[in-house]
Amino acid sequence: MTGRDNDRRKFLKLGAAAAGGAMLPGASRGTEADGTPEWTRRMGKGVGSAPYGAPSKFESDVVRRAVPWLTASPESSVSFTPLHALHGIITPNGLAFERHHAGYPDIDPDRHRLMIHGMVDRNLVFTMDDIVRFPSESRIYFVECVANGGMEWRGAQMNGVQFTHGMIMCAEWTGVRLSTLLSEVGVKPGARWILAEGADNAIMNRSVPIEKAFDDALVVYAQNGEMLRPEQGYPLRLLVPGYEGNMNIKWLRRLELGDRPWFTREETARYTDLLPDGKARQFSWLHDAKSVITFPCPERGLKDKGRYEISGLAWTGRGRIDRVDVSADGGVNWRRARLTPPVLSKCLTRFNIDWTWDGGPALLQSRAVDETGYVQPSMAQLRAARGVNSVYHNNSIQTWRVAPSGKAFNVQLT
Amino acid sequence: MTGRDNDRRKFLKLGAAAAGGAMLPGASRGTEADGTPEWTRRMGKGVGSAPYGAPSKFESDVVRRAVPWLTASPESSVSFTPLHALHGIITPNGLAFERHHAGYPDIDPDRHRLMIHGMVDRNLVFTMDDIVRFPSESRIYFVECVANGGMEWRGAQMNGVQFTHGMIMCAEWTGVRLSTLLSEVGVKPGARWILAEGADNAIMNRSVPIEKAFDDALVVYAQNGEMLRPEQGYPLRLLVPGYEGNMNIKWLRRLELGDRPWFTREETARYTDLLPDGKARQFSWLHDAKSVITFPCPERGLKDKGRYEISGLAWTGRGRIDRVDVSADGGVNWRRARLTPPVLSKCLTRFNIDWTWDGGPALLQSRAVDETGYVQPSMAQLRAARGVNSVYHNNSIQTWRVAPSGKAFNVQLT
Repeated sequence: MTGRDNDRRKFLKLGAAAAGGAMLPGASRGTEADGTPEWTRRMGKGVGSAPYGAPSKFESDVVRRAVPWLTASPESSVSFTPLHALHGIITPNGLAFERHHAGYPDIDPDRHRLMIHGMVDRNLVFTMDDIVRFPSESRIYFVECVANGGMEWRGAQMNGVQFTHGMIMCAEWTGVRLSTLLSEVGVKPGARWILAEGADNAIMNRSVPIEKAFDDALVVYAQNGEMLRPEQGYPLRLLVPGYEGNMNIKWLRRLELGDRPWFTREETARYTDLLPDGKARQFSWLHDAKSVITFPCPERGLKDKGRYEISGLAWTGRGRIDRVDVSADGGVNWRRARLTPPVLSKCLTRFNIDWTWDGGPALLQSRAVDETGYVQPSMAQLRAARGVNSVYHNNSIQTWRVAPSGKAFNVQLT
Repeated sequence: MTGRDNDRRKFLKLGAAAAGGAMLPGASRGTEADGTPEWTRRMGKGVGSAPYGAPSKFESDVVRRAVPWLTASPESSVSFTPLHALHGIITPNGLAFERHHAGYPDIDPDRHRLMIHGMVDRNLVFTMDDIVRFPSESRIYFVECVANGGMEWRGAQMNGVQFTHGMIMCAEWTGVRLSTLLSEVGVKPGARWILAEGADNAIMNRSVPIEKAFDDALVVYAQNGEMLRPEQGYPLRLLVPGYEGNMNIKWLRRLELGDRPWFTREETARYTDLLPDGKARQFSWLHDAKSVITFPCPERGLKDKGRYEISGLAWTGRGRIDRVDVSADGGVNWRRARLTPPVLSKCLTRFNIDWTWDGGPALLQSRAVDETGYVQPSMAQLRAARGVNSVYHNNSIQTWRVAPSGKAFNVQLT
């Protein structure tokens, strides 16, 4: 018997043991006495029971979760994507993280307008009917809050991947190229920046460099096939792929063109990176390469020693993920993971790697490399470069310590 | 002024007119009197309001719909995907069409088992915990009911793309390769077919050729990132990409290997294609190339003459879509549409093409060509080859007649 066969038998013992006497599926309809479960014996629910469906009641704990102590109010707060329970790369709309500055409105799309003005040939106001008549594009992109993992900078160790990395989502977005709208209004020479502003109670606004508009920025109205959800900017949102989340202005109502940035509150008092010498990095929008193991993780440990598949997500704002390496010994040895196709630009990439757990302690890490050659840093490397004053742009390697019990813990290696 | 500029101005007149006096967005918070809408003046809802989110109340008509007269009971019936309201290629799980034979159960995953037996080296029973430990794969595939469009064969003209083409969905599926499970049980020489059986009250079952198992068949547990919905087979479903929908057995509980097909009810009394000579095509699983325009369509007409983007979906069970051509004059002249990347195998492909409507009558059609060179046929060609006895595998070209009013109607050209 080879080692692999041996592993297999151990692996299968689990299932066989669990199945023993619990149920013997058969080809014919049975009675309660023969163990046929009630769902096979009874007619199920008909079509029309759920015109807009919902998950199984057995999945009711898979939800976005907030951390009440983290923020002063639920209206200026965040809820986290349950990454530990997700598969593939698409985040279902109902589970996509939220970050609001003054809560989320439910806007009447017939009354919503987008105004474009400033250094343009003609100011224009667009209705939603206007917007959807333009040539459309659909693209799968991630959106990550720049504060994702921010609590870890100074050593807080949130107990779960939902809270360490859950301010990220990935979706198929559909909308109009921002450059298409800009050619409608005509951009004046010298225009270099765009102020994007939301229709929420915070009137959230950010300055966006005009190069992004002529690169890949979209004004989107749909997410994963359907219209945006209210908490994601319904009916209109700016999408600046690879840039920090807050610049993807939700409930987009205004775009103003100018020759310099606006230095709004959200790019001066917030969303800058205070460095050790007291200076602040500003307009540091781009997400560098990052990855995290989503199984195992604190929410989902191991049951018994034997064969497993380690699974996780990698992403970069600079293009495609080139490779992901995985270590089970805290970074001493690394093995290359499989990337699930299609590997798309500025999109989550699912990685997987087979692993046999010997039942002893392990330190699991993943390290992403993007197509520019950038290598995801350790937390020590990141602190050496940027200090500990910032809460933003933590893209460091995450470590999960697997205990002999099979439970996984968030740890920081010194 | 060029023709294009002229079109643009006409196009923009719409928006400007609609916006006139309705609202003037501004950078500062206003009062009711200055036209600032209430959602900007009031704090919105906080995080935690919807741990599992839902669409906007303004999208409440975007739901799966059944046709009560179509079937004798809602438990053996179908609900249709609202294709007219969707964008891109991903179908949200809440809107994915249903086709049940005895309703849908809500299975306890801890009690669910998958048995594999028959011509194998060892019979095995797998728990869900066992299944998710195997190496996983995530792939984006369409699933289409073979009766999609079946009512059109003999001339019924359902009034809407939701009902003519809505028995299709596309999702990112995650699960285990069926071949991985088969290598666990060991396939005996001579095994050629697999019976797949569901745990629903219909005990739905179909014979699948073993070649498919070693090609791309999956046993899936997740759809668009989250666990399968109950109506889509929670917790386990067979996924045979490109094959007719009913073979993607939901609530999968049993796989039996044998040397011949089982000739179950669903492959003898149902799901065969009765030809003009009285013979029936059997085991005609593969979906040939097909496409449909989703805008405009009977549910979404045109508002005024001018520039539009025609948008639609194309797919084939044989691999990738190679091209889609669009006609506005009932097939006399064709223009090549843009395909939205990534164009994936056995996946929906979104196509778009610019079109200026002159306000006159038009006959809109799309025609898909797949990578094998197969060209989507007209209904006349399909009837000439297959007669009118069948209800299955209608992949003919759909025609929408646009009236001068801007409304679109389902018509069949003679």
